[in-house]
Amino acid sequence: MTESDLPVVQLTPGRWGDPAHPVDLPAAAVDALKHLGVRRPAAGPVDPVDRPGLTAEQLSFLAGVVGAEHVTTDLDSRWAHTRGYSTPDLLRHRAGDTSDMPDAVVYPGSHDEVLAVLAACSDHNLAVVPSSGGTSVVGGLAASRRFVTVDLRRLDQLVEVDEVSRTATLQAGVRGPAAESLLADRGYTLGHFPQSYEGASIGGYAAARSSGQSSAGYGRFDQMVVGLTLATPRGTVELGRAPMSAAGPDLRQLVLGSEGAFGIITSVVVRIRPRPTERHFEGWRFENFEAGLTAIRRLAQDGPLPTVLRLSDEAETAVNLADPDVLGGGTGGVLAIVGFDGPYTQATADVLTAAGGQNVGEGPGETWRVGRYRAPYLRDPLLDEGALVETLETAAFWSKVPALKAAVTGALVSSLTDQGTPPLVLCHVSHVYDTGASLYFTVISAQTHDPIGQWRTAKAAASQAIAAAGGTISHHHGVGTDHREAYAEEIGPLAVEALRAVKQVLDPSHVLNPGILLT
Amino acid sequence: MTESDLPVVQLTPGRWGDPAHPVDLPAAAVDALKHLGVRRPAAGPVDPVDRPGLTAEQLSFLAGVVGAEHVTTDLDSRWAHTRGYSTPDLLRHRAGDTSDMPDAVVYPGSHDEVLAVLAACSDHNLAVVPSSGGTSVVGGLAASRRFVTVDLRRLDQLVEVDEVSRTATLQAGVRGPAAESLLADRGYTLGHFPQSYEGASIGGYAAARSSGQSSAGYGRFDQMVVGLTLATPRGTVELGRAPMSAAGPDLRQLVLGSEGAFGIITSVVVRIRPRPTERHFEGWRFENFEAGLTAIRRLAQDGPLPTVLRLSDEAETAVNLADPDVLGGGTGGVLAIVGFDGPYTQATADVLTAAGGQNVGEGPGETWRVGRYRAPYLRDPLLDEGALVETLETAAFWSKVPALKAAVTGALVSSLTDQGTPPLVLCHVSHVYDTGASLYFTVISAQTHDPIGQWRTAKAAASQAIAAAGGTISHHHGVGTDHREAYAEEIGPLAVEALRAVKQVLDPSHVLNPGILLT
Repeated sequence: MTESDLPVVQLTPGRWGDPAHPVDLPAAAVDALKHLGVRRPAAGPVDPVDRPGLTAEQLSFLAGVVGAEHVTTDLDSRWAHTRGYSTPDLLRHRAGDTSDMPDAVVYPGSHDEVLAVLAACSDHNLAVVPSSGGTSVVGGLAASRRFVTVDLRRLDQLVEVDEVSRTATLQAGVRGPAAESLLADRGYTLGHFPQSYEGASIGGYAAARSSGQSSAGYGRFDQMVVGLTLATPRGTVELGRAPMSAAGPDLRQLVLGSEGAFGIITSVVVRIRPRPTERHFEGWRFENFEAGLTAIRRLAQDGPLPTVLRLSDEAETAVNLADPDVLGGGTGGVLAIVGFDGPYTQATADVLTAAGGQNVGEGPGETWRVGRYRAPYLRDPLLDEGALVETLETAAFWSKVPALKAAVTGALVSSLTDQGTPPLVLCHVSHVYDTGASLYFTVISAQTHDPIGQWRTAKAAASQAIAAAGGTISHHHGVGTDHREAYAEEIGPLAVEALRAVKQVLDPSHVLNPGILLT
Repeated sequence: MTESDLPVVQLTPGRWGDPAHPVDLPAAAVDALKHLGVRRPAAGPVDPVDRPGLTAEQLSFLAGVVGAEHVTTDLDSRWAHTRGYSTPDLLRHRAGDTSDMPDAVVYPGSHDEVLAVLAACSDHNLAVVPSSGGTSVVGGLAASRRFVTVDLRRLDQLVEVDEVSRTATLQAGVRGPAAESLLADRGYTLGHFPQSYEGASIGGYAAARSSGQSSAGYGRFDQMVVGLTLATPRGTVELGRAPMSAAGPDLRQLVLGSEGAFGIITSVVVRIRPRPTERHFEGWRFENFEAGLTAIRRLAQDGPLPTVLRLSDEAETAVNLADPDVLGGGTGGVLAIVGFDGPYTQATADVLTAAGGQNVGEGPGETWRVGRYRAPYLRDPLLDEGALVETLETAAFWSKVPALKAAVTGALVSSLTDQGTPPLVLCHVSHVYDTGASLYFTVISAQTHDPIGQWRTAKAAASQAIAAAGGTISHHHGVGTDHREAYAEEIGPLAVEALRAVKQVLDPSHVLNPGILLT
């Protein structure tokens, strides 16, 4: 079973993952929640109450562009396109909150239809939120005024494979598993496997600068993109005549990460690689997080890097391992996962051994591989039990990583403890570079009476800690609405003004994703 | 002798390279020129005639910012800052043409002084051209209205080395050899060795997206930069909290390549690597360019890449090798140069052998290594002899490279033959990526009575051929004024408008590099 065999999952609104394969909480986990004071809520989810959508007149111009059969206004369709999958999103969904619901969903079938939809919406001053997989966890689908969703699922083609250049042209609406399957038929892989893989799409990867679990071997999505086509209300922008160029700024990198605020990416040209014929995943134990960090930094700086390289801290190692004997019978220590697409690289293992690592075999590696997309499935049953559970992530240069981890952990613990709900905070490194690494935090606590406000407070404390410790507000989730203020502080007022000026050129009516990325 | 031992060269105006070590044309080369119809010109270079510079009043505000001793208006100083080192630049220099001469040269000593100079020049509506090494070959120093040059040579510090993150903070005015020497003292290398290495500076590398001869091993300069500080007339922009981020577009890549039109890069944070303790350079022979291209593509796509990887075509191989026996006694064939910083990698050699390559030993490798910065020295004595000699470069995806090479060669041959001066056109690949490669052309012919117009015509034909064949107008020389129109066509009118909008925000008085990159 490889990534190309996985089915595309049609996500259920308000609940992550494949509804046919839910994850049940282990009884031990339910018991453990009691130690955090978690209590099962009395009330269950509330059904959404519809509110008036677009008028018939407004709909007619959309139907005129894409055909009446490709415009939907029923509650189910609009509710399914409401928000993404952050914990606040899920909580609002459970509360039946329709405040961020689109007025209609439009399904264009081509780049030209996207262009025409954008031009028409500009003329009618109707806001537009593009959606590919709809898997945002940073409020990337919640515009600040009424809007229609442009769902790109009909742009689902592998347009071209250039075997000499090892590039593929993929439309924005191709979902992760579909892309792998289409490429596998030709003997290739993209190698992009974010945790949202089952639901997310090519366009979203590009718009939000996604990074996948195999980034050590295949790079981030923004490193894979060598060309792109952007539909804007004013026309098309096409970029990328060569892998790299000195012809001005690299404008591909201005579009990647623009999160739909500058236009809708309708297709990308991406680097592809031959499908690996073998794979190996194994676990490595280190005495503590610091030792593990030194070891993976050595690989990141001097190589040879494996394809997957992840390091859990002590807390995450303890929680994730049902059986502590996995770590060689010792108590404590931390677990790293090391994966190879292709032959096993002994030189990588040698570096880890020299850095004090102990190979604990394929067991933990295979456990991680099999469950690599399942962790987010746990959040919904945890919320069912009354727990507050959410993740956040950042990145920094290596010298700042230890203090950054301590600062964010401290901020989360302080904030939630102050609110009467002391949390468990878990952390891992999942993306490494020669000059730095990412940190990914998972937080679990009891809910207060206002879990959305509770998390807002904790997240604000974490965000301030990230900025003070010199980290970036997001390594791979993006900005959306949740990180907008922190992002503005990170790049500074002149850079924000420059981005607004770019938006003004491409989207003069300000219909594209209002309130997302930029105010 | 390694790169860190090379001296910084104080370039002579209008003549490339270290005046203490000129290169004489071999007698055989002089004879060969006769076959192209090259005739030694009757007249020699003409001295420049001064023209009025700034008024005393205008100077006083600059002196007030940086001190009177850091403002110069004498002819020698201004003439030394006139234009760069393209062949048209050298020809204009020989003609004593002072039309592009700055009115003054200002030498700020800090980021804050650069800020103050920019603010003051904005207030006085005085155009500013930043200059680090002054080595542009695309008209990057020739503003479209009267200007002062801001020479950054006093910003010459290695500010910080972060050994854990393997980054260094370097000021913009540090010259290539100085950067290597400063880093070598700490045991590190930047690994950036463009052909302009002896004269070019960190700020110019960044502003023009430079790529060095060791790019296969160390990457391009824009891939080395993880942080930067930009001084603009409206204040400072600081970017780069992590190696990579999903917090919006990568704005570092918007500043890199902006060629002084958005602001002056005053320092960068760059990735560094441990100094190699050994180096190996060798030559490889392939039957023809096509076979060599397939071989180096294999290394670029499946590895392992060496540090230096270059492939000359048949014409360049024949011209560069005084002794055809270098290629194993055969006649014909093409030469590749393969260099390793660090241990020799047999696996690389195995790939080349499997692709039909023949190892012709260290001789050609060492010859290339020793002369790696000397080729541009030949241009001046060739011009002295009356030859027209110039280079241009492009890049494209691998599948387009052969047709691109044919199209550009054809355009140059046609254009110059039509002008009565049939040329010799040489080509090599010097930068490879998994999805494509660069092509670098050298053109030699006799001069017509108007060599600047002659080259303009040939270059226009080559640029049209590049665009038609799907290449980028520059892989590592930049846009400047020479490529401005081709660049605008390459990115399209909406992208140009977006860049103008960014400039309008950062440089509302339009004093920064008017006419460079953008009209």
